[in-house]
Amino acid sequence: MNVDGEHYRTIWVKKDDSGTIQVIDQRHLPHDFIIEEVSSVDQMARAIRDMHLRGAGLIGAAAGYGMYLAALTAPKGSVAELSDFVRQAGEQLKTTRPTAVNLAWAVNRQLQALDQAEATPLAWIQTALVTAHAIADEDADYCRRIGEHGVGLIEEISRRKGGEPVNILTHCNAGWLAFVDYGSATAPIYAAHDRGIPVHVWVDETRPRNQGSRLTAWELGQHGVPHHVIVDNVGGHLMQHGLVDLIITGTDRTTFTGDVANKIGTYLKALAAHDNGIPFYVALPSSTFDWEIEDGLTIPIEQRSADEVRFIQGRHGGETKRVLLTPESSPAVNYAFDVTPRRYVTGLISERGICAASAEGVLGLYPEMRK
Amino acid sequence: MNVDGEHYRTIWVKKDDSGTIQVIDQRHLPHDFIIEEVSSVDQMARAIRDMHLRGAGLIGAAAGYGMYLAALTAPKGSVAELSDFVRQAGEQLKTTRPTAVNLAWAVNRQLQALDQAEATPLAWIQTALVTAHAIADEDADYCRRIGEHGVGLIEEISRRKGGEPVNILTHCNAGWLAFVDYGSATAPIYAAHDRGIPVHVWVDETRPRNQGSRLTAWELGQHGVPHHVIVDNVGGHLMQHGLVDLIITGTDRTTFTGDVANKIGTYLKALAAHDNGIPFYVALPSSTFDWEIEDGLTIPIEQRSADEVRFIQGRHGGETKRVLLTPESSPAVNYAFDVTPRRYVTGLISERGICAASAEGVLGLYPEMRK
Repeated sequence: MNVDGEHYRTIWVKKDDSGTIQVIDQRHLPHDFIIEEVSSVDQMARAIRDMHLRGAGLIGAAAGYGMYLAALTAPKGSVAELSDFVRQAGEQLKTTRPTAVNLAWAVNRQLQALDQAEATPLAWIQTALVTAHAIADEDADYCRRIGEHGVGLIEEISRRKGGEPVNILTHCNAGWLAFVDYGSATAPIYAAHDRGIPVHVWVDETRPRNQGSRLTAWELGQHGVPHHVIVDNVGGHLMQHGLVDLIITGTDRTTFTGDVANKIGTYLKALAAHDNGIPFYVALPSSTFDWEIEDGLTIPIEQRSADEVRFIQGRHGGETKRVLLTPESSPAVNYAFDVTPRRYVTGLISERGICAASAEGVLGLYPEMRK
Repeated sequence: MNVDGEHYRTIWVKKDDSGTIQVIDQRHLPHDFIIEEVSSVDQMARAIRDMHLRGAGLIGAAAGYGMYLAALTAPKGSVAELSDFVRQAGEQLKTTRPTAVNLAWAVNRQLQALDQAEATPLAWIQTALVTAHAIADEDADYCRRIGEHGVGLIEEISRRKGGEPVNILTHCNAGWLAFVDYGSATAPIYAAHDRGIPVHVWVDETRPRNQGSRLTAWELGQHGVPHHVIVDNVGGHLMQHGLVDLIITGTDRTTFTGDVANKIGTYLKALAAHDNGIPFYVALPSSTFDWEIEDGLTIPIEQRSADEVRFIQGRHGGETKRVLLTPESSPAVNYAFDVTPRRYVTGLISERGICAASAEGVLGLYPEMRK
């Protein structure tokens, strides 16, 4: 999507012959737009682990390009040495974020491709680059297709409102910054905006890490999409007063039965949507489905550091500062995700289309996953 | 309640003969406990307007003591001059927070008392002091009685749980810092704690102004009540997983039909309580009832500065700093309250007892308000 009027992805190969990868270093957003150069596996592993980049789709793509850097920087010795180096790089990349399923998936896809390539340094470099591009392009393409399917929901509301702006609420960042391009929840919004359908987005700030006010607000602003930041407490009031037409969120894991694990607080918005008769959609590429778990409430929920609640980071006097919000002695707890039961989910938007949040709906779109 | 093991109210007369009023300057909490001396009407008006003290009950008491300061500092001239000075002080105090009904109520109560007193400076000083004390004592007494009525709910859960800690969630600050003592929502909690019933409080931080993490966490900590601060997004997840036994909040205005206007985000917690079969109670002194409005959703909702959302204040390097959270160019909206429809309110706890959130319930406790 656009930054200062120029099109960007979140990760790309530098336009020279150095084989350097460039990424947007998201730690500095929204206050500074910094492009980081990554030219070794170690650097890529650090960028993933220390969250210079984040989001399921994007870290998969980053692991893919990390494997390309492995092939590129492998010692110029025997084929066995090359293979050892690349396999070790794969292990290193996989362990940077242990719970993220996309890392292992991307590394394994690279290893399969390399196994089928000619065993020479040049063939491995070329194959790894082609595969990394394929992973990134597929991520962007899946998100683009989510946008194609979801934009119809917005168009329909726009028609009903006689062209008045469609008010869409979203939570956290399921935007292009979490993928290679377009995003999941934001893809239908960008598609509508780019087609000239007037949209306005309510951006939940999404405490404790404020991915909404830091990332979603920034990317919408850069692409020119009208929006307002709100605290997470406000959505219910807006819905009671007819100020929300549609909710679209992303998801970290959705069971094939339709239960949605997503950033903490999503469930509260789904309840308010249900209470006020407002459609609540969840957008996801198929890689985010969990094909095993039937009851979403059994998904283990990560507890993170209490200091993410007790402290917050912001800009003061041109510098980023971390300030204490609570009494020094007050403890805090920090659950990172919650689960929205399928009965509150109007539908799921995937790269294959829109379906009901139910086993019947999901397996209807993905019949090959029926057991 | 206790601060560092010593009992405090939020406002009191200094224990010397100076006639000085002392208040806890809440702007510095939770990081600094600063007692401010107030010895003129101007100072009291500034303390109310600039929110050195806040909360419906407390600003009523502050206006009461402000009228005592008026009588005390009036020019020692004619009775007409005394009367003019005091009446003018009343007007000044009334306008410090234009929407707060308790200010006008306290000022008018003082003026009525003074009208019935002997028209001498000394008699007015004495009458104003007695009336100010009466207003403050009545506020504390009403809150204490809310505690007496509400503690039974906690006792019952404690028995059912075999003495395991009762987990109570609250939103914003309806604690003793908002009143003269005890608080409304916190009164049953303090009563239970002081009787040795194990309680644990989930404190919603309550963005944007963080009255939960700044004030409620501080006062619970000072009084020794176990608690954890959580972001406003977490409550639904806790309720889904059986980690909340009871919710008690305060209210800024409750219709006699049982609809509850309270700090933004209250409605979302009530929805989650309803979805999970958890009792949701609202504690209030009778002064907070609106005896006219039938439909709470018609109560006008204050919109405050967007900068309360865009910026946040916290402690950094021993100083209080205000940091920017959003992109410089992203706008925000800031609704201060929402309305929880009566169908999600299990009951109301007032100084007269517990009743259903309905006209029948409320007018049953306050039959003199039947029309």
